[in-house]
Amino acid sequence: MMEKIRRNERMSAMMKLLSASPNTIQTLGMFCELFGSAKSTMSEDIDLLRGVAERFGLGEIETVTGAAGGVRYRPVVSRESARRTIRDLCHELSGSERLLPGGFLYYSDILSTPGIVNRMGEILATEYYSAMPDFVLTMETKGIPVAFATANALGVPLVIARHSSKVYEGSAVNINYVSGSGNIETMSLSRRAVKENQKALIVDDFLKGGGTARGMIELMREFNVSVIGMAFVMSTVIPEKKRITGARSLMTLEVTGGETPEALVKPAEWLE
Amino acid sequence: MMEKIRRNERMSAMMKLLSASPNTIQTLGMFCELFGSAKSTMSEDIDLLRGVAERFGLGEIETVTGAAGGVRYRPVVSRESARRTIRDLCHELSGSERLLPGGFLYYSDILSTPGIVNRMGEILATEYYSAMPDFVLTMETKGIPVAFATANALGVPLVIARHSSKVYEGSAVNINYVSGSGNIETMSLSRRAVKENQKALIVDDFLKGGGTARGMIELMREFNVSVIGMAFVMSTVIPEKKRITGARSLMTLEVTGGETPEALVKPAEWLE
Repeated sequence: MMEKIRRNERMSAMMKLLSASPNTIQTLGMFCELFGSAKSTMSEDIDLLRGVAERFGLGEIETVTGAAGGVRYRPVVSRESARRTIRDLCHELSGSERLLPGGFLYYSDILSTPGIVNRMGEILATEYYSAMPDFVLTMETKGIPVAFATANALGVPLVIARHSSKVYEGSAVNINYVSGSGNIETMSLSRRAVKENQKALIVDDFLKGGGTARGMIELMREFNVSVIGMAFVMSTVIPEKKRITGARSLMTLEVTGGETPEALVKPAEWLE
Repeated sequence: MMEKIRRNERMSAMMKLLSASPNTIQTLGMFCELFGSAKSTMSEDIDLLRGVAERFGLGEIETVTGAAGGVRYRPVVSRESARRTIRDLCHELSGSERLLPGGFLYYSDILSTPGIVNRMGEILATEYYSAMPDFVLTMETKGIPVAFATANALGVPLVIARHSSKVYEGSAVNINYVSGSGNIETMSLSRRAVKENQKALIVDDFLKGGGTARGMIELMREFNVSVIGMAFVMSTVIPEKKRITGARSLMTLEVTGGETPEALVKPAEWLE
């Protein structure tokens, strides 16, 4: 016979299993079977876990009632905690060390370091749980890890638009758009990638003029998909007027002139 | 005064905090401070957590002794559990539905669905903990999510090589390589991305002839970085002879001839 499982063991295992599948409802029945416990016992465990998550700022555990009910974990980040994370990042990115010729900022390392990327994904996801996107859309390449982390936190797939249609993606929809440099570019997405009437959240690393974002919106229109939000890691202060509205970014970038230009990276207003 | 924290609460919170930063040593002192507990209490908690992780197949929790010691979580996947996951995937990918003209297989959705991708990343990471890579290297685009998940499980950064050097990446190293289609292509990586004498693990979605992988090895040579392993989601049965050796893949792909071609996707031999 199986050794009796103690409450502290059950709760620890549940915390791991719940947080490994964010924003996904797991049934009480599944946990009852796994631990050989009664539903009433599981409900007590879940109540305690909810308290733990709240007390230590580890996200939200919720019971969802109804036929498809169960328990769900969301890595919700408080505004205060998000602000602290983003302020630290801004501090690291500001100054002259990361500035490249032409006023570009080097931050590819930040965009692919798992700890930072997962955190940014959770901060962005927190803002879009209520809009219930069906998938996250990004345009290759640099924004893919953050878009993936956001999709992970939202419990939805990631969809990646590409510069050109590849033979191994099958039949594709292509659109043309005007890039930041004024060139006409192509954006491509496999027909199989999304379904009609779904809701998309656009996530990308950088917003300057908004040409690429505009392209993604048009691409979604071709699929009869509505865009419920647009989120970026960084947006430039200039140009002030973007070709899209309603975008949310984590940080803003301004490059000062003069002999030794510096990057001024600040938390976006909605975070302050 | 703070309400006393019970063992079940401490353990649940620790499980979440440990598993959120895989393969990263966290000090006992940090946990003592967070919970207001003595070191002896924390050690007992950790012993219990180690048992929970083992009993429910949730990975490994280890105590690391020495000056930089503490406790560490690794999402180690047992061979049996890995086999089950990959067999299910093979079942889903086999047949004619996902075959595209030219014998290509559509599996972009599999490569960017968080649940599956994280699991593949954990299975691959399990094989490379002992080699202690400093970073994961991938070549844009489709392999980025799996490479990111592997880097996450290993607790190291991801580095993304690109087809052409972009102005916002700064000074870069470019190499030329012969792609699968026989074309000469360029692979580029920012000088800032890696340091001399580091160890790289290459992770990518697809291995056919091995031209791109060869290119990544040459790129690393330019940086004086050694490649400690190469891991792929899928490798083709044909050509049998690849341009690289020592690669590990999760699945193999063979396309049958005849009037209605079918994809035969099988778990790689090392998993069986």
